[in-house]
Amino acid sequence: MITLSSDFGSPYPGAMKGVLSQWTDSQLVDVSHDLPRQDLRQSAFWLRETLPYFPPAVHLVVVDPGVGTDRDAIVIRAGGHALVGPDNGVLLPTARALGGKGFELFRIETREEPSEGTNRTDWPPRLASSTFHGRDVFAPAAGRVHEIGIDSLDDDEGLHRLDDYESLRFPEAVVGESAATGTVLAVDDFGNTITNVPGSFVTESFGGAVVVNGETVPLARSYAAVDPRELLVTVGSHGNVELAVNQGRGDDGFGLTAGDDIHLELV
Amino acid sequence: MITLSSDFGSPYPGAMKGVLSQWTDSQLVDVSHDLPRQDLRQSAFWLRETLPYFPPAVHLVVVDPGVGTDRDAIVIRAGGHALVGPDNGVLLPTARALGGKGFELFRIETREEPSEGTNRTDWPPRLASSTFHGRDVFAPAAGRVHEIGIDSLDDDEGLHRLDDYESLRFPEAVVGESAATGTVLAVDDFGNTITNVPGSFVTESFGGAVVVNGETVPLARSYAAVDPRELLVTVGSHGNVELAVNQGRGDDGFGLTAGDDIHLELV
Amino acid sequence: MITLSSDFGSPYPGAMKGVLSQWTDSQLVDVSHDLPRQDLRQSAFWLRETLPYFPPAVHLVVVDPGVGTDRDAIVIRAGGHALVGPDNGVLLPTARALGGKGFELFRIETREEPSEGTNRTDWPPRLASSTFHGRDVFAPAAGRVHEIGIDSLDDDEGLHRLDDYESLRFPEAVVGESAATGTVLAVDDFGNTITNVPGSFVTESFGGAVVVNGETVPLARSYAAVDPRELLVTVGSHGNVELAVNQGRGDDGFGLTAGDDIHLELV
Repeated sequence: MITLSSDFGSPYPGAMKGVLSQWTDSQLVDVSHDLPRQDLRQSAFWLRETLPYFPPAVHLVVVDPGVGTDRDAIVIRAGGHALVGPDNGVLLPTARALGGKGFELFRIETREEPSEGTNRTDWPPRLASSTFHGRDVFAPAAGRVHEIGIDSLDDDEGLHRLDDYESLRFPEAVVGESAATGTVLAVDDFGNTITNVPGSFVTESFGGAVVVNGETVPLARSYAAVDPRELLVTVGSHGNVELAVNQGRGDDGFGLTAGDDIHLELV
Repeated sequence: MITLSSDFGSPYPGAMKGVLSQWTDSQLVDVSHDLPRQDLRQSAFWLRETLPYFPPAVHLVVVDPGVGTDRDAIVIRAGGHALVGPDNGVLLPTARALGGKGFELFRIETREEPSEGTNRTDWPPRLASSTFHGRDVFAPAAGRVHEIGIDSLDDDEGLHRLDDYESLRFPEAVVGESAATGTVLAVDDFGNTITNVPGSFVTESFGGAVVVNGETVPLARSYAAVDPRELLVTVGSHGNVELAVNQGRGDDGFGLTAGDDIHLELV
Repeated sequence: MITLSSDFGSPYPGAMKGVLSQWTDSQLVDVSHDLPRQDLRQSAFWLRETLPYFPPAVHLVVVDPGVGTDRDAIVIRAGGHALVGPDNGVLLPTARALGGKGFELFRIETREEPSEGTNRTDWPPRLASSTFHGRDVFAPAAGRVHEIGIDSLDDDEGLHRLDDYESLRFPEAVVGESAATGTVLAVDDFGNTITNVPGSFVTESFGGAVVVNGETVPLARSYAAVDPRELLVTVGSHGNVELAVNQGRGDDGFGLTAGDDIHLELV
């Protein structure tokens, strides 16, 4: 199985699937092609919350604002999985979630001479374009890694151990007994506003209330525990404090977006 | 084969696919993740118009505004298919379409102790979150049903026969010889406005006209039978009267949305 | 493998996948269901830039503003691939890319008597609706072609050689030594504005500048070679001159949309 994640929308994922199918007839599984566009931190968050639910697989990930620059193309081996994508940090939180500290990185060698036509089975990959490495570099690399198996990465002529890489870490919340200060990590499609405050800060207080940036809001286990269109604070599926509106958008209700600061006080 | 339908947009379907892949390497087929959000009636309509085209399969469906409340999680066995989702009526029209009156319901048992990490192969499923039962309950249940086969549901320790469930029925139109009164059931992505008036009300009159809420509109077999941007009334692929605009949006052209009343008079 | 491409958005592709699954349990691969709606030229462009990356496969394509009129339903055999869709030109650029001049067309016979219920395995296909031939004609035809194999098309009772068909050609740019006049062929999801001017017009001048419709813009190999929000001209992954904004939308930055004229002068 090879999974695909990108911020491409439509139709570029199709060409990547074509290239992957040049390498394998294994199942191709779309994770998302609507990752927050060119937003490495939010995309990294969603990848970390999603890819670890798969059994060991090759995961192709392309969120790549630096395409065509000298940023490396990489493969990360972590916990039996392989992550293939750009060296811009977007893969790192997932690598840590999958492998703890035990992950290893490989640089993907590329060749300057362009490919002939639509063939993408040459290895190491050729730089056919400077704008679509998902098709020209990452999809061939995912196909190659799937073909040889993740235990053979060290022996591959196109892969080279890499020690120096771009990291990406989520900011940590400051959590006290009755107050916490943190950040909005991501906003989901429903408008649920996901903070970096651990859910444990509020779980003992369900049924009570919490003051969010000055406004007192009920603390509830589920969205539907408050009336439709009402604000609530809950613990989301990622285990963090989430600001929501039942059957509405939490980001609009709280006036917050990714990157904003939040201050919580238990009542 | 397991199909997936939800109102999740992106990226939550990815985690469900990961969990399903913990249970099976069978093909995962996306039906839609853009069902009308938290709109049980429109979603139920689209599911009924779509899932019966599949050969017998397990269908995972998550449109679930009541997630985390005490609504049941259910499996419905109907016509060789299994439908897995929340007990809020969204599955019922499809169950009737697949099985006539011959469908059977099972309640999915859940356990309060949360899962460890990302493993979702425990059965009965554990309530790891109160906000994402697609990942924590329904995907494991779909995996389980796929694994044991739909003839074995009665013997499963985590499934229990259920007689009392939420129903959902579409309103019926009142149809006379030359006039019909009904409702807009759904609006599709193109803006085609789908009513509950049976197509048989108009099929004899193609080439003529019909008065829709006071406006006279040509009655045509295909969108392109009228000029671009012109209103028309036709019979859609679901067999019902549909209000449309050739190469445009019928909902805008007629000023209608799901749930609105319509009155039709043959000219 | 059967690939699916359409301008359907959601949820109509689901019914097509159901019908395809009545014919085969082969892998179904979504290419895109967000092709530019009812826009044959832009859709034809994206199909040509995408489908040739697949190994030989059956490609179901539905962009069909003339559904229900007397336009033919066709299969094109080209370079080992089969393209199945409407005879409106949308498949032609892909057919030429796959097969050079060596492609062959077949008309799909249809029967007026409608199908019974949701069964779509009758062949030749029955016209169950006049609004959704993706489900009623093209998906059964793709299933049939996949089943019999592309070498057997001549022997099939439901397929008939066709010599007369709708063509579609992209306009050609007029390219001189230091100036070129062309057209915007397509705008991608990022806003990158793709012209019909061959990339070779600018590749020797990377690092320099080009005047686009009167405005002087840097000529760069990659988006990130200029500052965020800055205009640039580059060569896109299709090999053509592309007008872009680093981490922004080129169509907005240049005030252009598909079909607009462009004039380029090297500085």
